[in-house]
Amino acid sequence: MDRLAEQLRFALEIDKLKHVLRRTSTAAGDQRRRENTAEHSWHFALMVFLLAEYANAPIDLLKTVKMALVHDIVEVDAGDTYCYDAAANLDKADRERCAAERIFGLLPADQAKELRDLWEEFEARQTPESKFANAIDRLQPVLLNYHAQGESWRENGITKAKVLARNEPIGEGSAALWDYVKNLLDAAVREGYLSE
Amino acid sequence: MDRLAEQLRFALEIDKLKHVLRRTSTAAGDQRRRENTAEHSWHFALMVFLLAEYANAPIDLLKTVKMALVHDIVEVDAGDTYCYDAAANLDKADRERCAAERIFGLLPADQAKELRDLWEEFEARQTPESKFANAIDRLQPVLLNYHAQGESWRENGITKAKVLARNEPIGEGSAALWDYVKNLLDAAVREGYLSE
Repeated sequence: MDRLAEQLRFALEIDKLKHVLRRTSTAAGDQRRRENTAEHSWHFALMVFLLAEYANAPIDLLKTVKMALVHDIVEVDAGDTYCYDAAANLDKADRERCAAERIFGLLPADQAKELRDLWEEFEARQTPESKFANAIDRLQPVLLNYHAQGESWRENGITKAKVLARNEPIGEGSAALWDYVKNLLDAAVREGYLSE
Repeated sequence: MDRLAEQLRFALEIDKLKHVLRRTSTAAGDQRRRENTAEHSWHFALMVFLLAEYANAPIDLLKTVKMALVHDIVEVDAGDTYCYDAAANLDKADRERCAAERIFGLLPADQAKELRDLWEEFEARQTPESKFANAIDRLQPVLLNYHAQGESWRENGITKAKVLARNEPIGEGSAALWDYVKNLLDAAVREGYLSE
């Protein structure tokens, strides 16, 4: 069973995603702490099928959920790159390409190709599925940040203009969710969670 | 947008699953720590589509992945019940039923029904999808436990006979994966990770 051995070797390797910390905190009250990429991916995948009705164009739901589950696996090697860190974002694409080579390369060739294709499609934001997936990937931390009183925006001195620029792709995936987010950011400014 | 508000209220509520700790530890070396239910659900969902080819019967993959994402949401209220704790398992069904009522009840009626049905189907283990999902839900911690040198088996004095009894349903979902697990447990005994 060489094939199964390769698949389980990959399953073990991606366990490391549970130790990659993001800048966003969990929303839940007293126990609030930084979120890791594995649990973010779960939350994101679930929100994809919960909110699929708001996609601008019809989507293949299975493909979009797979994309959510797979989209950050490269962070096992490349780490989480904070979206507002301009310097770290300069070589992000290179670091992630090397990571994709190694990690997806653990799989049998057919699955290595499938997962790598899903990741590249997600990154390219050209298809209805990847546009919607990118919308949810951005909506999820905005929602958590708002309900954590803007903690990570305040800690990192992020302004509303930066959050709007970062999140504009939400509109490419879902006009309805982008309207919602713009209203939420207005509320965040009013409540002092985010600076104008 | 009352409907969207309900859906996002639910999305925020289930964020709490990131704070529900399981008995299983993550496999990764130095940073090993107890796994939470949200990251387990991500790992489980991803393994469902990675290993779908080993299902005993054809499965609806989207439905099975959704089941994985949703199967432990009741733990937001009911907590994780350790599978080898006989006392805690006596009222597990009641606690989880109350939790399902409240948490899925946050959603619009159509989605409350869909998610609750998925959860009940998973628990009942009667369909090809739920049999396969239950197989992966059990395979995942066995794999992590083995690669953590049987830490949680040793800490809790679990014997091979108990692990076999607990994991027998793997065979109902996938004969190939059950063969693999039986061999892994033999290896675990040889290596002193699990007592005979």
